[in-house]
Amino acid sequence: GLRYDLTVPFARYVVMHRNEITFPFRRYQIQPVWRADRPQKGRYREFFQCDADIVGSDSLLNEVELVQIIDEVFSRLGIRVSVKLNNRKILSGIAEIIGEADRITDITVAIDKLDKMGLEKVNEELASKGIAREAIDRLQPIILLNGTTGEKLEKLRELLAPSETGTKGVEEMAFIIGKREALRLRNEVELDLTLSRGLNYYTGTIIEVKALDAQIGSITGGGRYDNLTGIFGLPGVSGVGISFGADRIYDVLTQLELFPESFSHSTELLFVNFGEREVDWLLPLVAQLRRDGICCELYPEAAKMKKQLSYADSNRIPFVAMVGENEMKEGTITLKNMQSGEQKSVTPDEMARAIR
Amino acid sequence: GLRYDLTVPFARYVVMHRNEITFPFRRYQIQPVWRADRPQKGRYREFFQCDADIVGSDSLLNEVELVQIIDEVFSRLGIRVSVKLNNRKILSGIAEIIGEADRITDITVAIDKLDKMGLEKVNEELASKGIAREAIDRLQPIILLNGTTGEKLEKLRELLAPSETGTKGVEEMAFIIGKREALRLRNEVELDLTLSRGLNYYTGTIIEVKALDAQIGSITGGGRYDNLTGIFGLPGVSGVGISFGADRIYDVLTQLELFPESFSHSTELLFVNFGEREVDWLLPLVAQLRRDGICCELYPEAAKMKKQLSYADSNRIPFVAMVGENEMKEGTITLKNMQSGEQKSVTPDEMARAIR
Repeated sequence: GLRYDLTVPFARYVVMHRNEITFPFRRYQIQPVWRADRPQKGRYREFFQCDADIVGSDSLLNEVELVQIIDEVFSRLGIRVSVKLNNRKILSGIAEIIGEADRITDITVAIDKLDKMGLEKVNEELASKGIAREAIDRLQPIILLNGTTGEKLEKLRELLAPSETGTKGVEEMAFIIGKREALRLRNEVELDLTLSRGLNYYTGTIIEVKALDAQIGSITGGGRYDNLTGIFGLPGVSGVGISFGADRIYDVLTQLELFPESFSHSTELLFVNFGEREVDWLLPLVAQLRRDGICCELYPEAAKMKKQLSYADSNRIPFVAMVGENEMKEGTITLKNMQSGEQKSVTPDEMARAIR
Repeated sequence: GLRYDLTVPFARYVVMHRNEITFPFRRYQIQPVWRADRPQKGRYREFFQCDADIVGSDSLLNEVELVQIIDEVFSRLGIRVSVKLNNRKILSGIAEIIGEADRITDITVAIDKLDKMGLEKVNEELASKGIAREAIDRLQPIILLNGTTGEKLEKLRELLAPSETGTKGVEEMAFIIGKREALRLRNEVELDLTLSRGLNYYTGTIIEVKALDAQIGSITGGGRYDNLTGIFGLPGVSGVGISFGADRIYDVLTQLELFPESFSHSTELLFVNFGEREVDWLLPLVAQLRRDGICCELYPEAAKMKKQLSYADSNRIPFVAMVGENEMKEGTITLKNMQSGEQKSVTPDEMARAIR
């Protein structure tokens, strides 16, 4: 079978190498994964995930660090995002205090529809799922929770006071959110009670990232799983991880036109090809410049000058070098700045500085 | 179906974007590909290919450039290789002059066994494949071809004089080999008549790279294909390309112990975790140092000092920073060089210079 995610192979790796690894163990991994879903916009059969995980530590500082990574990545890419957090323990606490401990998923799914459907329909849906009238009544203050994340947390702390698990969840969330200032995060971090992301998997924090300026599903997700390695025979190793969806992020970058223009070219210098003798003179120079870290090309054919210059133009190559009979005799290169049109004569040694 | 190579998708790309592309078109691509073969050492079901191709140009300078790329890559990796070249036109010429134009593959396969089996067995095999006695006789000078690549080419030029195709192949080979000096290649480049690499595919140069110090199949291969894009409806686009087998190269690097030790770690600086108050003091500093490009970590738990230092040790982290009550008061950091054991007090601003 093809990889469905990078977490299971990682869990296997951790178990196989448990004796060589020092915990807490941090790893990142970039690889393609597959889905059998029907392909559609933003939903691919094959796509790349970029994962970062820390295992073997219960500390919430790990969650904080992953939030920081998310913030850094999207700041650098220039994508404005909202980092949405939830906690499985808060959801368990909610289900518990309304007396419907087993119905977390139904409750979460229904709450999620509040914006679209309004309160009445949400309550109807809850009832239709078989949730007791009394439980629905008790759920109202939670469904109607609003204000800042701080206010929501305060309210939840009160409402979930009877539930030990729920209280733990609120404390965890408050800890992570509380580090926001110290880290000088540049993106929103907020509590979103509707996040679930496969509840069976996560045991604590749940993380999801949405792009603010593009219509697309979540572009990063993750959370804490308390028994990742259990299926491979090493129980009790807690971990927390996130996964960036590279293809969706690429889609967002394209949609928002955030790819820098200079990304589409890399050759800095094109040597015009005037024929065999000139080529033989140039080859050692081209080899040397490349070893010096200059991305240069020699046009492969002694085509017409116009064609060679138009190749440089199309590929946005900023400098063109010409070496004919005179230049070979003098050991110089005629260098043309393709933007300004300016030409000057340089020696091979001066080349690097002349084009940078 | 899963990708079998990167060349077919590339050909498709070229045809789809023919109106936006400027030829000669150069691209590199790194992606996994798959084989249904039975997996064994050096033969994987899933493996990464790193391809470089140039299409839309017949110039042999493209072949020269690919040889240069090969030389550069393996020089940088520290793997000594032999770059073996052959040419489909030489093989066609040989088959032609001995009067067995259709039997290139049988002839190549038999010649390849000379070292292992000796001349007599090779001739027996040729006969058993139905190649005429007379043709086998004519083949002898080619089977017994020896000397330097220059000498072999000289001899082939004579032998293949009656074949136009064969002569063309010898000239192409001589041109590419002839650039060796000018490029200051650091690895052997030699003619190997036994190379075939799927003859139906290649039309000119055939390239194969073998590691000199490791027992493994070819680690890079390629050649010229004159009608790559034909199957997608754009005939006549010639191209030349090479493919590095990343996994086998990884195997060679491992076998020869060429991975630098410093590759296994990347964190430069570990902050010891003394507890909540210290963590809150450190978080903005850690965030700032990271933005300044310093790979640092904060140990996620206020574990025993010994445990935290042993984590730094196991992960070969060269510097450990300690911030306790005194340091917080003074705004300094106690920095420990893990190799020398030396400790000193630095300010946050001095940190970057202190560890590099």
